[in-house]
Amino acid sequence: MRRQNLALVLSTVAASGPLSRAAVAGRVGLTRAAVSSLVDELLGAGLLVEGETQASGKAGRPGRALALHDRGPAGLGLEVGPAHLGACVVDLRGEPRVWHRVPALNRSRPAEQVLGELAELAAASTREALALGLRIEGAVLAVPGVLGPAHDTVEHAPNLGWHGVVPAEHWPAALRAPELENEANLGALAELWRGGEPADTLVHISAETGIGAALVIDGRLFRGAAGYAGELGHVPVHTDGPRCSCGARGCLEQYAGARAVLRAAGVRGTHRDPVAALVDRAREGHAPTLAALTRAGEAFGTALTSAVNLVDPAAIVLGGAYTELAPWLLPAMTTELTARVRVRPWDPDTLRPSRLGRRGPLLGAALLTTQRVITDPARLWD
Amino acid sequence: MRRQNLALVLSTVAASGPLSRAAVAGRVGLTRAAVSSLVDELLGAGLLVEGETQASGKAGRPGRALALHDRGPAGLGLEVGPAHLGACVVDLRGEPRVWHRVPALNRSRPAEQVLGELAELAAASTREALALGLRIEGAVLAVPGVLGPAHDTVEHAPNLGWHGVVPAEHWPAALRAPELENEANLGALAELWRGGEPADTLVHISAETGIGAALVIDGRLFRGAAGYAGELGHVPVHTDGPRCSCGARGCLEQYAGARAVLRAAGVRGTHRDPVAALVDRAREGHAPTLAALTRAGEAFGTALTSAVNLVDPAAIVLGGAYTELAPWLLPAMTTELTARVRVRPWDPDTLRPSRLGRRGPLLGAALLTTQRVITDPARLWD
Repeated sequence: MRRQNLALVLSTVAASGPLSRAAVAGRVGLTRAAVSSLVDELLGAGLLVEGETQASGKAGRPGRALALHDRGPAGLGLEVGPAHLGACVVDLRGEPRVWHRVPALNRSRPAEQVLGELAELAAASTREALALGLRIEGAVLAVPGVLGPAHDTVEHAPNLGWHGVVPAEHWPAALRAPELENEANLGALAELWRGGEPADTLVHISAETGIGAALVIDGRLFRGAAGYAGELGHVPVHTDGPRCSCGARGCLEQYAGARAVLRAAGVRGTHRDPVAALVDRAREGHAPTLAALTRAGEAFGTALTSAVNLVDPAAIVLGGAYTELAPWLLPAMTTELTARVRVRPWDPDTLRPSRLGRRGPLLGAALLTTQRVITDPARLWD
Repeated sequence: MRRQNLALVLSTVAASGPLSRAAVAGRVGLTRAAVSSLVDELLGAGLLVEGETQASGKAGRPGRALALHDRGPAGLGLEVGPAHLGACVVDLRGEPRVWHRVPALNRSRPAEQVLGELAELAAASTREALALGLRIEGAVLAVPGVLGPAHDTVEHAPNLGWHGVVPAEHWPAALRAPELENEANLGALAELWRGGEPADTLVHISAETGIGAALVIDGRLFRGAAGYAGELGHVPVHTDGPRCSCGARGCLEQYAGARAVLRAAGVRGTHRDPVAALVDRAREGHAPTLAALTRAGEAFGTALTSAVNLVDPAAIVLGGAYTELAPWLLPAMTTELTARVRVRPWDPDTLRPSRLGRRGPLLGAALLTTQRVITDPARLWD
């Protein structure tokens, strides 16, 4: 019971702080004395700080404001992409305090070497965090691929060329190996926690060559019965469309994946960052690229009609690298959704680009740990 | 705490009974003494019975078996369809004890008259239940239409010709008006609770002229952010397909709704029960009907590909009247899903007809009350 109440107090300050003890008591529905005892324990554990006098419009003795500590427990996020490594440390407030994004051609190197470098980056970030008074309570690695059921194996990450890679096997023995999570899921969680426009039920799109989505339902990541939810890229758009890499026909990915759009625009050559290549051409006003992006937006709109009609999300967020394509994709997506979602009201404002963009998955990886501390602080002294 | 433990004991007997007191204690992780005190309270309230000696393979004193009471608290389900009224009473075990399905041409009559007759049926069913030693703890009306946000108004039920009907206004003042719930949702809940093959995450299809679906996620009905989840009938199948009644193009309903299939089969005339008309012709081997049903099954398969790829349900259940069309729809649905769901494994056994069929919504309406009692028995003496 006390464990739950500690979580209640900490979550309340996290959601609405800074707050006085009296304000916390009012919100959580416990007595002032009970809240003070809980607050003292959280202050003692270094999770809360009680700051200077809080400005108050009311008469009477002003309360001192409680806020989350900017030192103490922290989360380490790690990321491996086709062309970069990333590390990030967030404090309990969710603020990024250490941020590294290092170019690295990971696709052409053995997984062992990539993970060795990532472990060095993790160790360096941990040292930097320590110098800031932060203590890493957990590390999570964002993976652009499918994880095995036990979440210890990267079964399939085509953009890295990884198949059946177990990162813990290549991690230095002296360091604790990170937990693994799919990057699309982490992008969605970052949007949920730090996206700026709260929505408890959302579809978060993260696309590059492949197109994935993650579903947040009632404030929690929904993985599906077998862990396969959110395969937006393989929703059929045209039943007799081109053959997809998955084996089916006319999947969204064949119309709106970055390489498919480049192909449709007649842009040749290899592109380390195909989304950036599209953005460059769209900015230059390259007509075939603009037309291809419009068709991609229409295909997104058709596939998202299914998502809106089936799931009824409060928000659809275009996240990850595709955030940068929002100016060219969103108009056609909106037109198509407006024309197709007719059985129910649909508000175009529920479709929006992420504010986090490519930073989402790495930020989400770091936030996973601090969110766990906030929803159950007693885990720290278990 | 005691309230939660009462629910825990009652739910355990509901899920796995008959069980001895010792077996219940073993399952819920409480002491034998604590369980006995809880059991005594539930026996006293008439929710459990302690029956004859339980057969046991083990040596030692055989325990007496605890089971849910077949008298006492009960749920009343009511239903209004275009051509019938229904009433059903289930006991705490979920067994239907009173069952009425009365032909009634509700479409051509004022809502007031229909609801007056339904109230008489409800009163008669309540009297019959009383004679069986059952006490109605709540009544729920299954409505084939869209409810208002407060769930007190039938905003739109095209098959009844109801718009903005508030059933409580037409209910006899002496009787408590029933709670309203959408029939597709109730069909899904009946499947979840009494479908025979447990699946915590499922898509339940109920179709007739319109095609609806209800989503059960983690054992609970998922309504969506604004209450519009499950509009399977308006998932686009062919982007340039025929205009749908909703205003969009190529919706599933235009290929697989019962009247659309009759039209595609060239069957003329009005049909009070279009699904039965299709079943009759399919049984006679009417070739155009068989071909139209195959095309309907293909369209279902395309739309359900979106549902599988987005939501990843453990089961897809063809329920309601369409259960009767399963022999002709399921083969094409399975072929299409197998060809289109390629990005992930998909097991054709997860697609199945409901065992409840047209009985689902009425049964679900009655079960809603008894399930509430089982998950919180203390509500009875609040």
